[in-house]
Amino acid sequence: MNIEMIRAAAARLEGHARRTPLLSSPFLDEIAGKPVFVKPECLQHTGSFKFRGGWSALTALAPETRESGVIAFSSGNHAQGVAYAAKLHGVPAVIVMPSDAPKLKIANTRALGAEVVLYERGSQDRDAIGAKLARERGLTLIKPYDEPQVIAGQGTAGLEIAADARAQGIEQADVFVCCGGGGLTSGIALALEADAPGYSVRPCEPEGFDDVARSLKSGKIETNAKLSGSLCDAIITPAPGEMTFPIMLRLCGEAVIVTEEEALKAAALAFQRLKIVVEPGGAVGLAAALFHADKSDAPNLIAVCTGGNVDADVFAQTLATL
Amino acid sequence: MNIEMIRAAAARLEGHARRTPLLSSPFLDEIAGKPVFVKPECLQHTGSFKFRGGWSALTALAPETRESGVIAFSSGNHAQGVAYAAKLHGVPAVIVMPSDAPKLKIANTRALGAEVVLYERGSQDRDAIGAKLARERGLTLIKPYDEPQVIAGQGTAGLEIAADARAQGIEQADVFVCCGGGGLTSGIALALEADAPGYSVRPCEPEGFDDVARSLKSGKIETNAKLSGSLCDAIITPAPGEMTFPIMLRLCGEAVIVTEEEALKAAALAFQRLKIVVEPGGAVGLAAALFHADKSDAPNLIAVCTGGNVDADVFAQTLATL
Repeated sequence: MNIEMIRAAAARLEGHARRTPLLSSPFLDEIAGKPVFVKPECLQHTGSFKFRGGWSALTALAPETRESGVIAFSSGNHAQGVAYAAKLHGVPAVIVMPSDAPKLKIANTRALGAEVVLYERGSQDRDAIGAKLARERGLTLIKPYDEPQVIAGQGTAGLEIAADARAQGIEQADVFVCCGGGGLTSGIALALEADAPGYSVRPCEPEGFDDVARSLKSGKIETNAKLSGSLCDAIITPAPGEMTFPIMLRLCGEAVIVTEEEALKAAALAFQRLKIVVEPGGAVGLAAALFHADKSDAPNLIAVCTGGNVDADVFAQTLATL
Repeated sequence: MNIEMIRAAAARLEGHARRTPLLSSPFLDEIAGKPVFVKPECLQHTGSFKFRGGWSALTALAPETRESGVIAFSSGNHAQGVAYAAKLHGVPAVIVMPSDAPKLKIANTRALGAEVVLYERGSQDRDAIGAKLARERGLTLIKPYDEPQVIAGQGTAGLEIAADARAQGIEQADVFVCCGGGGLTSGIALALEADAPGYSVRPCEPEGFDDVARSLKSGKIETNAKLSGSLCDAIITPAPGEMTFPIMLRLCGEAVIVTEEEALKAAALAFQRLKIVVEPGGAVGLAAALFHADKSDAPNLIAVCTGGNVDADVFAQTLATL
């Protein structure tokens, strides 16, 4: 895993992934007490940065391998990113989803051209179902974060942050990244190490799901006690990845933990001041920048808003915090 | 008023105005039955395209004139665009607002550094107050649309549309623009005439406020019977401008009229599929593209979402249409 793989992914993404801008508002600067910039990956295709990794992984496959199709688990943003990347390539995508996943997410994944295979969460083994399908149909598994080409794809967001922020004269910054398994966080950290050495990545997590914070402190992979019960579901994973964690340990600053209420409030401010739609889990980095700026010595803060796939009722709850 | 003025404005806006991307979603394409691209000017500084015109007008003034300050009327998007452009120049801005304007808009305009002068809508003459202030303090009036440098600034959005859509291989398109006084519409029409001659601008208006549609039909400036009572308040003006109308008459295709419900539904789809926040008036162009695609022979549709300054309660109403 190295910077050349990220640059190669960027070349493959060029003209296919959306180049998201850097947003800002004097109102947000005032809350943080210093300049805040926002990388709105909610504006990426399928509403999250996951399209970058999906596209990167698909385009890294040999054409004959790719043509047989790909498979992914998850009812979330990774599923949609992989499904859409496969659709644009005209190759089959199978997404294995729990049967109790929201109907809208199942419908959306199907509408993006994927074949959805449902399994019973309690009684069926997801991995076994996936492995059988992959073997029978020659599908390639695209893992959500512990996969070099996925990390490389997510890292392209870091190259863009470095280019756009440095063009604005910013040489020193803390970059707050919502962190689940660490694919985006480690990819951005590698990109910034190369292109913006004065920038430091700060992984951000919701309270109660601080596996990365604890892992960075102890120096080894720690797990979460629970995996549900948060509106920040998009970034809840069992533990940092075996491939992503060593990168984070080497390059990241201390993690920042925010409350669910702070995440909702940050998403509400993103609505009001930036006019973007951010899901609670995608607003954790912005919440850290706005409400925990005192945990950073950097003169500038950059927050990645990682996704915007939020249902209307949760968004209404978000707006109620204004 | 000519294309060279728009190109000069673009040079002055470079690095100051935000270069908004072109967004799209396969779900929106499906609704329209053909490819739909969205220019999200809600992501512009202050949440609407008006910052372009404000910045263009301020930078076109002689430095000694600009230093004395500027004045604008309106409680809306133009006020905020001018106020923020003045703040960034460190020059005074006076915004004359009705005393019954929403408290939040007054507070925001003040927070953007402007001096807000309130007047009583029923008993006081806004123009007289403005003229007196301008004379006493040497302020320059920045009109919202009938002002060449404002039209030139708004037209820069058209240059970007032409560049970005043509880079995607689009040679023929109808461009749906939410239309109030016609500053943005005429500016974009001039830009496209020069840079994308296969593109045609279609002004879009809410039902009951179709002054531009009727003016284009009759060939002379027609007025609206009423000026309130619409959630699309951002684009309700008495009549097309004397400077903007001849440009629209020469260059624009037939206007498209949408219902308020269609505008809300389009804003809800922009939330769901593009992750952007659009106010009802700013969604009129997208509503035309999505729900009146049959009124266009063009193979591609481009809609400008002009602004996102919507209160949480109206946005909740928007989401309820999903």
